[in-house]
Amino acid sequence: MNRLALLALPLLLGAPATAQEAEPVTPASIVEASAPEEWVAIPPEDLLVMDLAPDAQGRARQVIVQLMPAPFSQPWVDNVRTLARAHWWDGTSVYRVVDNWVAQWGAGEDGGEAGFAPHPLPDGVVSPFNPYEVAVPEEEGEQAGQFGLVDSYAEAVDFVAGFPLAQSGDKWWPVHCYAHVGVARDLAPDTGTGAELYAVIGHAPRQLDRNIAVIGRVISGIEHLSTLPRGMGEAGVYEDRAEDTPILSVRLGNELPEQPHFEYLSTTSDSFARYVESRANRNDAFYTVPAGGVDICNVQVPVRPTAL
Amino acid sequence: MNRLALLALPLLLGAPATAQEAEPVTPASIVEASAPEEWVAIPPEDLLVMDLAPDAQGRARQVIVQLMPAPFSQPWVDNVRTLARAHWWDGTSVYRVVDNWVAQWGAGEDGGEAGFAPHPLPDGVVSPFNPYEVAVPEEEGEQAGQFGLVDSYAEAVDFVAGFPLAQSGDKWWPVHCYAHVGVARDLAPDTGTGAELYAVIGHAPRQLDRNIAVIGRVISGIEHLSTLPRGMGEAGVYEDRAEDTPILSVRLGNELPEQPHFEYLSTTSDSFARYVESRANRNDAFYTVPAGGVDICNVQVPVRPTAL
Repeated sequence: MNRLALLALPLLLGAPATAQEAEPVTPASIVEASAPEEWVAIPPEDLLVMDLAPDAQGRARQVIVQLMPAPFSQPWVDNVRTLARAHWWDGTSVYRVVDNWVAQWGAGEDGGEAGFAPHPLPDGVVSPFNPYEVAVPEEEGEQAGQFGLVDSYAEAVDFVAGFPLAQSGDKWWPVHCYAHVGVARDLAPDTGTGAELYAVIGHAPRQLDRNIAVIGRVISGIEHLSTLPRGMGEAGVYEDRAEDTPILSVRLGNELPEQPHFEYLSTTSDSFARYVESRANRNDAFYTVPAGGVDICNVQVPVRPTAL
Repeated sequence: MNRLALLALPLLLGAPATAQEAEPVTPASIVEASAPEEWVAIPPEDLLVMDLAPDAQGRARQVIVQLMPAPFSQPWVDNVRTLARAHWWDGTSVYRVVDNWVAQWGAGEDGGEAGFAPHPLPDGVVSPFNPYEVAVPEEEGEQAGQFGLVDSYAEAVDFVAGFPLAQSGDKWWPVHCYAHVGVARDLAPDTGTGAELYAVIGHAPRQLDRNIAVIGRVISGIEHLSTLPRGMGEAGVYEDRAEDTPILSVRLGNELPEQPHFEYLSTTSDSFARYVESRANRNDAFYTVPAGGVDICNVQVPVRPTAL
């Protein structure tokens, strides 16, 4: 590999290209050229901030989850807010990690798989079943399939309020993409509260859509989950609790002394439409054959820390 | 989560269910019930065995790649065989790891990104450009789209000789799924030899199809790559070579004293057809809403060590 590789690698990564008129259009250059008013601030109360124990080198590990906006998965999102306010997860751990599948953490009412002390759930935390699918307002429903994405799992896919969604008839549902966070449950579909959660750390397991609630996505720090050792016990649960990664605390962003501030590129903005188009038709210096299509999970909605 | 979870988790994982008549049909139960004659032995010479340095706990780390069968990517596969026979990769390293993207290793003729000593490539190793796409024999071409899978990137997808492929007109090409291995290159499409390789460690980057050669897939040990720390330098290259994971040796399977023996479920077998159908319509105890479709990268061709 010669020195040009240092030019090529950022393109492979989708990292920002230097802004020169001669540069080809890339997803990153579109994001870079977007207008400030095309970005939507994420309220700190819609962020779940999980501090894991430091790694072996003593480095901090923080994972930040953006919660699903209404009207999607709201019974579970409400539970998650209640559990965070109750400091439910403090002292629990990441106890299950399966390659190309999920990293899972927390503790159910009975202590859960990791064998924590049983503890009653906070008032108001119940196990909802429905709705995995919801109707969306008509004006948004009209946009279903607006980007022309072909999907292997649903009639149409689209983005609403910054999140990828799938649609059939008048019903919409959140999808399982890389870094998305869902509600672990037992066999019965009404057994998940949100007290145990998982993040996807592999290829999108879309077969879980409408079978498990998606309550958000990791917008910062997914690598602290995806690099964890894979569990060697049954179903990828660590055999020994000493292998777990301790969770120091989980808080809603607005309850922290230093509140996290992020924003996402509005999925109704002109720049986002160009971004999708570019993701489906990469034709910059590295790409010689544009695909002419893109999987919705390869259209990661741009999210960035807010410059304050 | 109550005790039922230990039943539910293996289903989530796709781990083998115990074979009882009352058990629902799952992808795993179909594989378990398949006939021995439905499996195809992988010749040891079609396996590339990479031994990484032991991990921090002293545990061995071996990664085994099944090379792409003819007629796909053969100029690069030939290079890879030549490089392995020349022990080209011994003493190089995994020098670049990007979350939800790739882990990359090896060294180009000039030493590559990791800055190894420049070294002439073995005789016969050249940089091919074409063919990323090839025509397949008519009898196989007739099967294009036989499983009815909807794809976001190609007219049709199918499996040939145990590998997932995409198709347009009479041309077919290997696809980038999780754990698939490709040829790193520079901006110019004829700059990749195979001396630097990468494995996909995230959501399938299908936009790379037909832009980079896929030379195989990791069939054992992908977790030794997917759990590596992510690089903090430019484009995810480690800033310090001390962060690299050393490669002790890379050999073709037939050159090892103990040859590796694996087999895959024939993609023309009845069991494989049932397996695809089941993956597209999960309706066992855990799933309440079958998807009615499946992304080709979520149809991992079953591979297992051969019982000798």
